[in-house]
Amino acid sequence: MTILNRQWRIRCKPETEISKEHFDWVEEALPEPGEGELLVRTIFISIDPVQRYWLSKNPTFGPPTEIGQVMPGRIWGVVEESRSPKFARGDLVAGQGGWQSYCLLPANEAEPVPNWPGVPLEAHTALFCMQALAAYFGLLEIGQPQAGETVVVSAAAGGVGSLVTQIARIKGCRVIAIAGSEEKRRWLCEELGADAAIDYRSPDFALELQALCPAGIDVYYDNVGGDILDAVLGLINPHARIASGGFISHYNDSEPQHGPANIHMLALKQARMEGFSCFEYVERAGEAFQAIRQWYEEGKITYRAHVVQGLENAPDSLAGIFHGKNTGKTVIQVSSTE
Amino acid sequence: MTILNRQWRIRCKPETEISKEHFDWVEEALPEPGEGELLVRTIFISIDPVQRYWLSKNPTFGPPTEIGQVMPGRIWGVVEESRSPKFARGDLVAGQGGWQSYCLLPANEAEPVPNWPGVPLEAHTALFCMQALAAYFGLLEIGQPQAGETVVVSAAAGGVGSLVTQIARIKGCRVIAIAGSEEKRRWLCEELGADAAIDYRSPDFALELQALCPAGIDVYYDNVGGDILDAVLGLINPHARIASGGFISHYNDSEPQHGPANIHMLALKQARMEGFSCFEYVERAGEAFQAIRQWYEEGKITYRAHVVQGLENAPDSLAGIFHGKNTGKTVIQVSSTE
Repeated sequence: MTILNRQWRIRCKPETEISKEHFDWVEEALPEPGEGELLVRTIFISIDPVQRYWLSKNPTFGPPTEIGQVMPGRIWGVVEESRSPKFARGDLVAGQGGWQSYCLLPANEAEPVPNWPGVPLEAHTALFCMQALAAYFGLLEIGQPQAGETVVVSAAAGGVGSLVTQIARIKGCRVIAIAGSEEKRRWLCEELGADAAIDYRSPDFALELQALCPAGIDVYYDNVGGDILDAVLGLINPHARIASGGFISHYNDSEPQHGPANIHMLALKQARMEGFSCFEYVERAGEAFQAIRQWYEEGKITYRAHVVQGLENAPDSLAGIFHGKNTGKTVIQVSSTE
Repeated sequence: MTILNRQWRIRCKPETEISKEHFDWVEEALPEPGEGELLVRTIFISIDPVQRYWLSKNPTFGPPTEIGQVMPGRIWGVVEESRSPKFARGDLVAGQGGWQSYCLLPANEAEPVPNWPGVPLEAHTALFCMQALAAYFGLLEIGQPQAGETVVVSAAAGGVGSLVTQIARIKGCRVIAIAGSEEKRRWLCEELGADAAIDYRSPDFALELQALCPAGIDVYYDNVGGDILDAVLGLINPHARIASGGFISHYNDSEPQHGPANIHMLALKQARMEGFSCFEYVERAGEAFQAIRQWYEEGKITYRAHVVQGLENAPDSLAGIFHGKNTGKTVIQVSSTE
């Protein structure tokens, strides 16, 4: 039986919500690695909200997304064939493989996945990934949380937010986690150590947030923008810091939405709102991963991977993130870790 | 003839636009200075947009503004009677004297006005004042302008903006000044050294701003908020800095307005928007005043004082700032400098 490479290619760019209609399923012969290249069998594909942004009309960062190309995305996989002395058959690697069951990676762009005892490959996808850099540096460098301060996290049950929640708690902060389901909020409070969790869909959201933050808000890790940002701005303390990691609530918009009416609070409170990108911290990844690994080994940090079986489910899984279908990091499992 | 102390006292708080109706004119006997106090004859009163904010419903900073009290405001005047060894009759001082023709100042709160050759008292009101601290530290510490960068300044012909425009030019930046009249824009370009000036009331404002900033915007010194902020956000460069000194365009609002739809640009461009208050830099005033004095003596910096004669015009002058009636620093002249 000939093994085929199964792929999701970009059919067209979404105007509003993303769905399977924007991709074509293609099956073709396995590629042959050239000199210095690796043929990698994909095990996990990272599914991240930012992938929706890459497909927007005029993205200001991210990989190219031309019509007809394989949808980009980070993968973890095993080297099936190596034409580089850097890697051997059977090595685990990570890299920009895209939404396909096999990929070619230039050996000098493939990242070796370290063999840490007690850290399964699934944990690498959740804890030692770009989202972990966003959580670690976004919270600690941009947010500058101090022990005893109140930290609010939106999309707290997602891949980034669940790490932010735990790191803020480790730093001694009071953590208010925002998430959309009862089950997620229970997980955030009971397992991740949030001091309280709150449903952003509550009609009294702003009042409930105020009740949970009697001493005001010092740090807000913003994954979503929109009305939640507005409510937080209304409660910030002097010299508050808002770390803007991405505006999930806007990624599906075709037209710009109204902005936060409370934006003037930045001036009134001498507060700072600052955007950042995990890509700016890639060179410092070791620093973050060392800290996270230590916390993981000490039992201070945990993760939940939302593992969806089967490459065919990649488009629906990306769409699902925007409806809160995931708890923790979303990955597609394409093949076995064996 | 008995000299009376003439005063504007707060009658009620404005809901929207401020006017003379919100003040009562009172004449009463001159106060007697107690031990450690000075009786000061007011020469100039500073009229600043922030005074409108102090009268809003729930101000988060500023002096108390109870109904019936003298309207607060910074004054420059001459000591008529001193009951402190720190000052003698005839000394020039500055301090929180309020909207009245005479005031009592505790000697340890009065600031001596230095006798710098070639620097008239009027120049002190424009160049060596709280607004100068806002301009100097807001631009340099929050905005961090680098030579060759594009700096945009709103309310550029006002007391703060006219200083920001000149300091940015001295630092080697390309300066785009936003102001509302042909005369102000000519002053900004011809005398203050702005590279271009633009009318925020133009129907094509956003497009005109874009045309004037072909390399994008690196620093925005924001005095107004509102739609200008939104237009600027649409043009910011990666790692842009927005220094938020105050939102004049909102001070007269009774209800919150819509916020900037382009706020997500902060996340996309890894940009920073940060509020500040001149009150946080009072201890470093000497640093700013030394630099400004040197630039002034070297002819690199100038000022224009919008001097309105007569205490009776204080309320109208404050109202007028919100309609762009002033060019440069607005002061009320209450008595002669002689």
